This record gives sequence, structure tokens and C-alpha cells, in this order.
Amino acid sequence: MRHPCLVSTSDPRPSSAVRPVAATDHEEKVRRKDTRLDNYVDRYAARTHGMTASAIRALFSVANRPEVVSLAGGMPNIADLPLDAVGSILNDLVVGNGRVAMQYGSGQGEPMMRDAICEVMRLEGISAHPDDVTVTVGSQQGLDLLTRIFCDPGDVVLCEAPSYVGALGVFRSFQCEVAHVAMDEQGLDPVALQEAITALRAAGKKIKFLYTIPNFHNPAGVSQSLERRMAILEVARRADLLVVEDNPYGLLGFEGDPVPAMRSLDSDIVVYLGSFSKTFAPGFRIGWVLAPHAVREKVMLAQESATLCPPVFSQFAISSYLARHDWRGQIKVFREMYRERRDAMMAGLADHMPAGTTWTVPAGGFFVWVTLPPGLDSQAMLPRAVTARVAYVPGTAFFSDGFGSRHMRLSYCFPTPERIIEGTRRLGEVLKYETSVHETFGTGVRPSVIMPYEAPGANQN
Amino acid sequence: MRHPCLVSTSDPRPSSAVRPVAATDHEEKVRRKDTRLDNYVDRYAARTHGMTASAIRALFSVANRPEVVSLAGGMPNIADLPLDAVGSILNDLVVGNGRVAMQYGSGQGEPMMRDAICEVMRLEGISAHPDDVTVTVGSQQGLDLLTRIFCDPGDVVLCEAPSYVGALGVFRSFQCEVAHVAMDEQGLDPVALQEAITALRAAGKKIKFLYTIPNFHNPAGVSQSLERRMAILEVARRADLLVVEDNPYGLLGFEGDPVPAMRSLDSDIVVYLGSFSKTFAPGFRIGWVLAPHAVREKVMLAQESATLCPPVFSQFAISSYLARHDWRGQIKVFREMYRERRDAMMAGLADHMPAGTTWTVPAGGFFVWVTLPPGLDSQAMLPRAVTARVAYVPGTAFFSDGFGSRHMRLSYCFPTPERIIEGTRRLGEVLKYETSVHETFGTGVRPSVIMPYEAPGANQN
Repeated sequence: MRHPCLVSTSDPRPSSAVRPVAATDHEEKVRRKDTRLDNYVDRYAARTHGMTASAIRALFSVANRPEVVSLAGGMPNIADLPLDAVGSILNDLVVGNGRVAMQYGSGQGEPMMRDAICEVMRLEGISAHPDDVTVTVGSQQGLDLLTRIFCDPGDVVLCEAPSYVGALGVFRSFQCEVAHVAMDEQGLDPVALQEAITALRAAGKKIKFLYTIPNFHNPAGVSQSLERRMAILEVARRADLLVVEDNPYGLLGFEGDPVPAMRSLDSDIVVYLGSFSKTFAPGFRIGWVLAPHAVREKVMLAQESATLCPPVFSQFAISSYLARHDWRGQIKVFREMYRERRDAMMAGLADHMPAGTTWTVPAGGFFVWVTLPPGLDSQAMLPRAVTARVAYVPGTAFFSDGFGSRHMRLSYCFPTPERIIEGTRRLGEVLKYETSVHETFGTGVRPSVIMPYEAPGANQN
Repeated sequence: MRHPCLVSTSDPRPSSAVRPVAATDHEEKVRRKDTRLDNYVDRYAARTHGMTASAIRALFSVANRPEVVSLAGGMPNIADLPLDAVGSILNDLVVGNGRVAMQYGSGQGEPMMRDAICEVMRLEGISAHPDDVTVTVGSQQGLDLLTRIFCDPGDVVLCEAPSYVGALGVFRSFQCEVAHVAMDEQGLDPVALQEAITALRAAGKKIKFLYTIPNFHNPAGVSQSLERRMAILEVARRADLLVVEDNPYGLLGFEGDPVPAMRSLDSDIVVYLGSFSKTFAPGFRIGWVLAPHAVREKVMLAQESATLCPPVFSQFAISSYLARHDWRGQIKVFREMYRERRDAMMAGLADHMPAGTTWTVPAGGFFVWVTLPPGLDSQAMLPRAVTARVAYVPGTAFFSDGFGSRHMRLSYCFPTPERIIEGTRRLGEVLKYETSVHETFGTGVRPSVIMPYEAPGANQN
């Protein structure tokens, strides 16, 4: 069953029992109390009233407790980076070229950095000119700048169901409405996309773009085949719809060569977001937007207004690393490390999940999407899981409309394989207990909403 | 004569002959042509239509020509930074703590960085808790985030007349209206401020905050005395008005100790913006916002939405530099270097400006504000100045409403003292020629608008 469900993200909490992870009842009460103590509450912009503590921040604090196996966070494991080599590269950079590398730079990003970005993108079949690249503060800022230049309050952004929690936050902060489009085991469903476009336009809505993650989806863990990409682009072209392709994990596939990026198939309607956070390191905060020339001009102007210029030293640091280190070899090392962790996650889930639990099998990236047995609520269960020393992200965080309580996102990127297996064991215990409670007392005990939603590519355990 | 003139910044070009530097007639034509070629023109948000090429970008390209003495840019001179020491500090940082320094971090900024920021602020009398600091991508992003959380389209921001060009760009990009408030030789005039507040509120306008640069004003080159700060804060308190204090140059004074920051005089109504761009180096892009706790919460949420977290490696780099290097001694070195350049600028202006030209005498910072003899137009004159191999920023860039054509901003931060003197010599030649043309043919040749505006702290040559 598909659901191009349209709910304004300016109030992400519908009047159901299902709440996003960021605001439990208690937190909501605390927030309201804080609000009463806020002398400035009458002065904020309308967009600010939708800004509430993000799931990502809550996750960081949970993940930091050492006794908890966190399958929640999305932090890459950068332990394999060659620190001696990077230290030496940065020392040489400062001594040799520090007066330029530590100075203000171009609002669009340094030419040398944009050249290197084009070289990286060639690995996924993209042929691009450095003039069409704008460097950003991580790809998160790329998404922020695009939303800023395209979206007025009330405009619609099409997203997968589920979608990246950080993207939903950006859309909410610019007062967009999010319409979720169903996925299957090949990612976004083009038929559902067409239906959503038709229904929304018939309702007089202005759709600004489709936001999609074609590779190793966060959180769904599925990927679009080449045929699927072509079908989605065909729908978008016919509908005159801009496509924002977010691709942080594309080079972290476990099987064969990368599937060509959507941008490699259509350079007119696709705006591409890339990042060095997962192929090198996130702390430099360097991502990029590749956009048709007219759009690039606006992105660059928005960047100048937002920061004057993206971090110059970071750009010199990454450019030097790419020039002097075997970065392709390093990505291979990362890939093997993540593949081993994905395998541990799959083995742990197979060993420990109770009957009726299903999950996706990611061919790359960081995440697995789990569907719980009927009657269980991942949101309500989270405090009990943390008590059992395992953490995850409830599925509700990845919807703008309160759906997702029967799902959870598990990540295998950061913990060791041994910890991943131990985490799935602990999670299995929690699920078995929850299932037995549910079987004894029924759904009446903890009311849950049945979702008109199809899990992406679920594989029965 | 004072002018709390109110003009919407969404169309910065009134129907007068006076235009901001960012859009000459020719550039405007090119832009319109580009716009016609932009397939996406009907899809942008309303805020995007006000985004045009910024003065800052134009300045970078002018300043890059080696034969031109650029008195236009605001780049700090970081040639005196100890590159060997910084290189070694960064090498040690990566080797010893790279896995943390290159990882994702806190959306609010690293605790260690926020501690150090509080230590830096103590030099200007500010007592603050690290919890109330949010780290930003330069103080430009601080201003962007504050405007984002406070300003709906049509809201008014009060600014000095003139004001920082990058701030005007931010306010325009969020569709604010800017109301300029007159200055004198002690900076923002509190009587004019009160008049502006009264007039605007009587007209039903919603004023969101006062944006002010109390120290070594960009572009006006004047500073608020302690008494002046107290008078401005008294007006703001009575009017229940938030004050955004932008202080990038506060530690770069040439005479005695810093005047206490406005934030040190009132922690309830002042939001403070700071930066390491001028006291260390701009390429790391680290600034900060110090705000009352409730506002800080919103700033942090906006930061998470915009970037997930500000540049982590930059924060570790600056924290390490502050911990291991004599940064106070380094600021003294910067101060002496800029004082020498200020002196060269003053000597050059005294020697080469024609009669009728006046300028401010900055006691710190980077900039001098020059008022031309009646009838001259700094905007119209710029191409002839560049032909004579000297560049400056026309005064119109610092107003949202087209005023400022009889003024220019000169900077002495980047060129050597010898080049500064040569630059003023070339500029003097241009002004003498323009004056003689004006005396021969009168104002009719190049019509100029007489400004209802009082130059800040002008000192007759």
C-alpha cells in the first residue's frame, strides 16, 4: 500500500500516540516550560517555532555512554585513517602555503578543491565542470542552501518514506510541507512518485523538488537499480520536476562498481549533493553541490551570504590529502571494514531477532531498516532498550508525519563487529520481552497506530 | 542632519542615479539576460529574487590584480603568523587526537573551544558561561543564524548609516527591511536611534533588533565611547529592543585598553558576535554567538539544521593554537602592524587629498570613511580609479537605499605602508581630476544626489 501522505512539517506531532524521538511527552513538557521562560518568544520568526531539539543531538548524547551499544548514530569509523600521513600533510601545507590556506577564499570554494571534486565524481560516471560546483559546510549545508533558494513557506518537497532525519529538519526549518513517497526493495517507487505529483498538483500544491538518496539509503538501507533511476528521471522530466540527489555513501558499496549517479544520466534536472564526510573525514565539514549553471549562481550567492566562504583551510587540507595520499585505496579499506560490520549485523539479526521481525540487506553504506512484529512500538520501547544497554533510532524520526513506529534504523558503521553482535543480542532480548508482553496483554496496553505504509525491501527473517 | 530612512532591501536600487557597487547598469543588464536563460527562474523562493552578486565577491576579483593598489578589501594581513609553530601544532593535533578532531562534533561547538572563547571575551570585560556560546562558520554565519531565527519578511532591522555590506546582504536575503540610523564621531547616535524606533513603531513596523559595530566600525572607522554605549543600551532597554553587537575588531585597538563590550554592560538584551578571523586567521572560519540562554537554544538548533555542526577540525586547531602559542602576544604584533598602516594611510591622505575631502581617524581596526568634495560621485568614479590602479569601495555599498555616493571606504589592513601611500597618491590624482572636471562643467555632467546624511566623525583635511 502506498501513501503519498501530506502533512505540514511545521507541526511534526499529529494528535496520535506516535511521536518523533526528539520530543517525548516529558521533553515536550520541559520545552513548553522553557518556552514560558523565554523572554524572546514573541520575537522569533514564524520559521523558528518549528525548530525543536533534533533527533541527531539526542543521539549523540545517548551514543556517548560507553556501556550502551549504540546502533543509533551515523558517525563514520575513521580509525583506519593514516594519522601520521595526514599530520605530515597538514604540517607541510601550513609551512609551505599557510598564508593562503588560512586566508579568506572564494565563496564558491577553492578552484583546486572543485577540480578534485570533479575527479571524485567521475568514479560514479559524472562528467562535470568545476564552475558548476559550489563547496559547502558538509552536504547538510548544501541541502540548507538549496532549500533556502527554492522554498517559500508551504511549498512541497517530495521525500522517500522514510527519509533522512537531517533533511526533514531542514525542510521544516524553511516551513516546507513534506510529502513522503513509497519505496520498495529498489528504492523510490516511480509509480508512487507519479501518483504523488498528480495528487499534489491537483490539490493546488507547488512542488519544488524531489529529494532522494539513491545509494544505500539512510535510513532504509536499499539502493536504486540503474533501471529504477532511469524510470524515476523519466517521471521527473515529464513532470518538469527538479531532482536533488543526495549521495554521501555512493563509494561505499560492497558489491562491484558503483551504479551510475542520477546526475550522470541527466545534467539538466538533477542537482547533486556530495560529501567527504564518509570517504575521508567529517570533521573538516566539506561537502558540495553540483547544479545546473543558473542554479549554481544562486547557491553561490546564498553561500556568500551565509558564510562569506566555506572553510578554506579544510579545502586545502582535503585537496592536499587527495593529491598526496592513495585516497582510492583508503576508500577500499573503509569499504572492507564496513562490509565486515554489515555482515556482523546480518548475522546478529538472524541469530537474535524474534519471529515476525524483518529487515533490509544493505549492499553498502551504514544502515539497516528493521520492521518489528505487529503490535510493537519502537518509540515507546526505546527507554527499555537503553536500559538494556542498546540504542537505535525509532522509525518515527524519519517521517514528517508521525508514521514509522513499527520500524527502527540500526547502524553498523561505528561499533566493532563484536559489539554489533552483542547489540543485536541485547535488542533481541528486548524484542522478545516486548513481544511476550504484547501477546499476554494485547495492543490495548500500549496503543499503537497501524501505518498505511510498506516497508522498503523487507526480507523475512 | 539625521535620516532614519526606511527602504525595503528587497529592491536595493531606488530610481536614482546612485547604485550599489554590486550592480552597475552593465552588470544589471547581464544579470537580466542571465535570468532569461535561467530555466529555474519561476521556481525560486521569493527571498532568492533579491540575491544579486555581492560587493564582496566583486572586491576579491579587483583586489587580485597585482598592478592595482587595493584599498578595497577587508582581508587581514596574516603574514606575521608563525607558520612553523602552527604547522607543528596541527601535526601534533592530528597524530595525537585526529580521530576526535576529524570526527563529527557538537552542533553547539566543542566544549574546549567554547571555554577558550569565554577566555578571549574576558579581555573586553565580558563574563559569560560556555553554555551560552554557539560556534559559527565565521561571525557572518552567526548573523545569518540570528536573522533566520528572528526575522520574517518585512521585519525591520536597525543598522548604522553606513553599515557592514555583508550584514546588509544577510538582511536582504531574509527579506528584511533595513532602517539606517545616523552616526557621529562617537558612532551610533542614541537620539537618532530613539527617533527611528518611535517613527517606525508609529508606522506599524516590527523592529526585530539593532545591528551595531561598536568598535572601529566597518566602514565608518569610528568607535563608541563607554558613555555612548550606555546611552544606546538605555534607549534599547526602554524600547525593549534586542541589540546585536558585532565585534570582529575589538582587540585591534591602537590606543590603550579595549572599551568594555556592550555585552559586558547588559547580558539580557545584547547578543554578541565574535570571530577569530582578525585575531588569528579567517581561513578556519570560526566565529561565535553569545546569546541569552533561550536565544542560544534557537541559534544552536538553527546551526544543527544548517551544518549539523560547525567545522570540528578548525575548532581543535584554534583551541590548540590558543593553548600552545602566545596568542595575546600575537595580537599585539597584529596591532602594531595595523597601527603602522593606519599611520601610513593618515599621512597619505593628508598629503594627497584635494581640499574639501574629509575622513575619519580610526583608533583601531581596518577602515577609514572618506567624504568627497561636493559634486563627486564615488560610484561613477570607480572605473576611472581602477584605470589609475587604485581601488576602494564606493559608499553606496554600505547603505540599503542608494545613499553614500559622496563617500568611500578605504582599508589599510592588507597592503604594505608603502603601497598604502602610493594608493592614496593615485587616488589623490583621480580626485583632483574629478574635481577639476566638476568645477569646469558643474554637477550637470554627472548628476549626483545630495544626501540627507551626516558623515560620521569627519575631520577636515
